Amino acid sequence: MIAVVPVLPTWLDLGATAIFALSGALMAARLRQTLVTATFFAVVTGVGGGTIRDLMLDAPVFWLRDPWIAPMALATALLAWFTPRQWWERQILEWLDAAGLAMFSVLGTAKALSYGVAPVPAMVLGIISGCAGGIVRDMVAGVPSIIMRPELYVTAAALSAGLTATFAWAGLPNLAAWTIAAGAGFGLRLAAIVWNIKLPGYSRGKE
Amino acid sequence: MIAVVPVLPTWLDLGATAIFALSGALMAARLRQTLVTATFFAVVTGVGGGTIRDLMLDAPVFWLRDPWIAPMALATALLAWFTPRQWWERQILEWLDAAGLAMFSVLGTAKALSYGVAPVPAMVLGIISGCAGGIVRDMVAGVPSIIMRPELYVTAAALSAGLTATFAWAGLPNLAAWTIAAGAGFGLRLAAIVWNIKLPGYSRGKE
Amino acid sequence: MIAVVPVLPTWLDLGATAIFALSGALMAARLRQTLVTATFFAVVTGVGGGTIRDLMLDAPVFWLRDPWIAPMALATALLAWFTPRQWWERQILEWLDAAGLAMFSVLGTAKALSYGVAPVPAMVLGIISGCAGGIVRDMVAGVPSIIMRPELYVTAAALSAGLTATFAWAGLPNLAAWTIAAGAGFGLRLAAIVWNIKLPGYSRGKE
Repeated sequence: MIAVVPVLPTWLDLGATAIFALSGALMAARLRQTLVTATFFAVVTGVGGGTIRDLMLDAPVFWLRDPWIAPMALATALLAWFTPRQWWERQILEWLDAAGLAMFSVLGTAKALSYGVAPVPAMVLGIISGCAGGIVRDMVAGVPSIIMRPELYVTAAALSAGLTATFAWAGLPNLAAWTIAAGAGFGLRLAAIVWNIKLPGYSRGKE
Repeated sequence: MIAVVPVLPTWLDLGATAIFALSGALMAARLRQTLVTATFFAVVTGVGGGTIRDLMLDAPVFWLRDPWIAPMALATALLAWFTPRQWWERQILEWLDAAGLAMFSVLGTAKALSYGVAPVPAMVLGIISGCAGGIVRDMVAGVPSIIMRPELYVTAAALSAGLTATFAWAGLPNLAAWTIAAGAGFGLRLAAIVWNIKLPGYSRGKE
Repeated sequence: MIAVVPVLPTWLDLGATAIFALSGALMAARLRQTLVTATFFAVVTGVGGGTIRDLMLDAPVFWLRDPWIAPMALATALLAWFTPRQWWERQILEWLDAAGLAMFSVLGTAKALSYGVAPVPAMVLGIISGCAGGIVRDMVAGVPSIIMRPELYVTAAALSAGLTATFAWAGLPNLAAWTIAAGAGFGLRLAAIVWNIKLPGYSRGKE
């Protein structure tokens, strides 16, 4: 937890960005937007969470440093556009979103810890950067935010972020810790989608 | 107005964050969300305005520095969740919002002045950081933004920010100046809610 | 493309901000908001794109440095408010938006290049800062985002950003390059509005 900067291998950011970018491009396609707008959606969804994370940590914004991330997000939009529709059936947008959510929750927490942030705010930053991609995508698209869905969403991000902080405290090697933490959050979100798992909603009063 | 950094006592940020956090948690409860989502709302509403302020001033983001602010926002969500519904009657969300609005408008202006920003942009930054908490909360929730309500809202923030800048220019001691400025904005917003005070809306043309 | 900072003459940011600010004030007027709220809209629309650009580049936020930009945005709101309604007929908001879009797309790309960002991410940053003003305005107002309109929008921003990067690579003098790049994007967007030019929307599958 010493401030060794940077600790995150670039390909992790690259992978998480690609996954969210694909979900953004698919959202634009569903809304019958053009290829250029789909590309814009891919980019802002892909880089949204990581950008907010880096701004808050006063770290260099990852996709302005790394010359490959922006082209990769553009390529993702082309992939979504020119491949057969049946590759992208209804739920795949949500699965991709789940994967991006888990990965950015882990990455955000780990990067914050590596910048010397205390565990609780580091987890919160992880959760925010995990959820931000989907929030930005849905806001720009004008559709209801995915985080308001009844199936566990923020909870899955919190699981990934919490495990990342716990494993760092316990001294686990990074790659193993991150894989387990991301897998747990991703698995929980998938299970929530498939079996329609919900936490109880607020139910006091009648209003 | 010399750049003595930091000038703001931590407990002011802590208090303003708690108040907005509570309004965020109550909003989530009204929308029948889960405890985890309510916590997320508490955090993003609580820290939203101050985060935008700190990013723009290139100051360290307050809740990543201070290890108590994030846990406090979490505790606020628990408070909203586990206390009797009748504690949180209809208008209390708006009153809390009014208090957070006034406090962050003062804090944003004062912090900008302490960073050497000129008075007019400092006031504007104060108004933006005052309004941002409510805007973020309402956007993520997908409800119409509170700043579009007919009763004075941005006007109250502008009163608090303007008084803060004026008092700083006049050389008043900080704590007195901030108390009066926050009280004035809070009072104006409350009065606007209670007596339904509105400025005239734009009324040229017919469109 | 050497990191000479700053390269952008202040009056360019001032002009682009004024144009977007006017579009924000007109939007508030259409929504029958008050003068104070219209001023708030003018400010956040005017400075939104440039602020996001400066935050991402870790540059000082332009309107906190330059003491004239915030007062100018306020003056713009007064101009929109107190002038005859017929000056601001239906399409002028879209024309102003088009001009701000093109100017901030050029400025964002040019500033990113001057900070040593690679061409593709610099273009992306230009497009984002061009589109951000309109996105912020429409989100705060709660109206559908202008970037979702069928007539070319992101495409016009991409044309301006792409030309800026190409001309910089070709070594054209800045002012000529920027004028042509902004003119091309503005012209394309205007043509798209007037002749209702659209790219084909996504049309695979049936859903």
